[in-house]
Amino acid sequence: MTVVKVFVNYKESILNPEAQAIQQALGRLGYENITQLKVGKTFELTFSDELTRAEIVQEVNEISDRMLANYNMENYTYEIIELEGMS
Amino acid sequence: MTVVKVFVNYKESILNPEAQAIQQALGRLGYENITQLKVGKTFELTFSDELTRAEIVQEVNEISDRMLANYNMENYTYEIIELEGMS
Repeated sequence: MTVVKVFVNYKESILNPEAQAIQQALGRLGYENITQLKVGKTFELTFSDELTRAEIVQEVNEISDRMLANYNMENYTYEIIELEGMS
Repeated sequence: MTVVKVFVNYKESILNPEAQAIQQALGRLGYENITQLKVGKTFELTFSDELTRAEIVQEVNEISDRMLANYNMENYTYEIIELEGMS
């Protein structure tokens, strides 16, 4: 079994009102030491054992490009975790 | 400078319609080998150097409990990354 965690974040140039709102609220609550706040999404995909690692990488790239990230506004990174002895 | 990444995920018992919709759409697109899909949020907090590590841990716990995670439906984990030589 292979678990792939895809992290999707806004590009640096894109304004993120949610992150701004949270950072302002934290300032009002007295948390003054936070200089930056970013908000992103995580998609955790579990693959069955039928695919090779190369096939999984290809599928993850396709899925991230087509569905999980908006190419114009977002970047993505991912990490691949192979779990042995589980089905 | 210290960066803390907080990962917020739905508890196992909570139905997540977004994850279900994405998994069904992936099935229709021919990605049949994904047995599970989870969707979560990431908050990346950058702390200035005024706080000790213990103070940062305390603030992150408070902030996660009060603002970032919904105690009834979500769990959170975080990782602390200390960056040296940057301001």
